[in-house]
Amino acid sequence: MTDITSSEEARHRQKMQKRKEVQDAEVAEKRIEKGLLIVHTGAGKGKTTAAFGLALRMLGYGKTVGVVQFVKGAWHTGEKDAFALFGDRLRWHAMGEGFTWETQDLKRDIAAAEAAWGKAKELMADPNVAMVVLDEINIALRYDYLPIADVVSVLQARRPDLHVVVTGRNAKPEMVDAADLVTEFSLVKHHFKAGVKAQEGIEF
Amino acid sequence: MTDITSSEEARHRQKMQKRKEVQDAEVAEKRIEKGLLIVHTGAGKGKTTAAFGLALRMLGYGKTVGVVQFVKGAWHTGEKDAFALFGDRLRWHAMGEGFTWETQDLKRDIAAAEAAWGKAKELMADPNVAMVVLDEINIALRYDYLPIADVVSVLQARRPDLHVVVTGRNAKPEMVDAADLVTEFSLVKHHFKAGVKAQEGIEF
Repeated sequence: MTDITSSEEARHRQKMQKRKEVQDAEVAEKRIEKGLLIVHTGAGKGKTTAAFGLALRMLGYGKTVGVVQFVKGAWHTGEKDAFALFGDRLRWHAMGEGFTWETQDLKRDIAAAEAAWGKAKELMADPNVAMVVLDEINIALRYDYLPIADVVSVLQARRPDLHVVVTGRNAKPEMVDAADLVTEFSLVKHHFKAGVKAQEGIEF
Repeated sequence: MTDITSSEEARHRQKMQKRKEVQDAEVAEKRIEKGLLIVHTGAGKGKTTAAFGLALRMLGYGKTVGVVQFVKGAWHTGEKDAFALFGDRLRWHAMGEGFTWETQDLKRDIAAAEAAWGKAKELMADPNVAMVVLDEINIALRYDYLPIADVVSVLQARRPDLHVVVTGRNAKPEMVDAADLVTEFSLVKHHFKAGVKAQEGIEF
C-alpha cells in the first residue's frame, strides 16, 4: 500500500476537501439545541445496549441519568454493576416483573407497567436528570399495558433540555411520529442459529 | 385498563405459557460457547455507542476490554471520561488522525490505519483481554487502507474466548461472512433534518 502516486494523493485530497466543505456547511446550518426523543426499535440486537452507551456518555459528562426497565430480563446483567461506579448519578429502576411470557399474569404485568411509568414521570420531572432511558417501554405499549396517547403526550411535554431514550421492538407509529431520532436495528445474522448459547457479557 | 375479564386473563396466560415453552426449548438447544465476531453496520446512529455498551457490560463483569478507534472524531467524547473509572481494565487507543475528510492526506491515513491495526492485534493476542472493539475499522477497510483478506483471516484466527466488535457503515461482504452476529443500524428519522445541532452527550 506504499506505492501511492502523487496524482492519487491529489485526487484524494480534493475529494476529502470537498467532503469537509459539505460537512462544515451542514454543521453551521444547525442551530437548535433541544432535548431529544430517541427511539431504538427493530428486531435486531443492541437497542438497549446502545441506550446504555448513550447513558454512559452522559455520565462521562458529569450528568445524571435515570433508567427505568419496563421488562426485566430473567438474567442478571453486567450493566448494573458497571453503572454502580457512578453512584447516585445513575438512578436505576428495574420495574418489570420478568419477561411477560415468564409471568403469565396480565393484571400484574399492567400494574408493573403503570408503576414503571409512574417512576419514569418522576425522573422526567426532576431538573437534575439530563437523560431518561425507558427501556423496553415499546413492549408495554405494544401489549396496551399503557395507553400510547398518554405516554406520547407526556413525552412531548418534557422539559426542553431533557433527552429521553425509548427502546423495544415494534415502536408504535405514534411514538415514531413524536420522535426526533429513530434508529431501526435489523438482524442480519445471528449466532443462535449456529447453536451458540447466550454468554456472559454478550446476551446478559 | 382495570376491567380485565377472566377469559382475557386465561387467554393471556395460555399465550405466554406457549411462548415460554418455545423460548425455553430454544435456550436448551444452544450449547456452544465461543468468542463472537460482532458487526455493527448501516447508516443509522448508535453503532459505536452500542459497542461501548457491550464494553461497559464486560467491564461490569470484571473483565478487561480493549478499544481501538480507527477514525477519531474531531469532537471530544464523553465515553473516554466515563471509561476512565475502570482504570487499566479499559485500554483505549485513539489511533485515527481525525476524520479522513479532515486530514486530506492519503499516506498519513494509511499509516494511521496500519498503526491502529497493529495495536488491535496486540490487544487480541493478550489473554487478559476479553473483548476488543475495533471502532470504525469498516471505514478503513472500505477505503482499502487495510487489506480485507488479512484483517478477516486474523479475526477468524482469534482466541476462542475473545469477543471482537467491529463497527462502521458499509461493512465488506467478507466481514459479514466471517461474523457471528451482524446488526444493521438504519436511520428512520434524524433530528439534523429539523435543524437541531450536535449536542453534548448525544453526538459527542
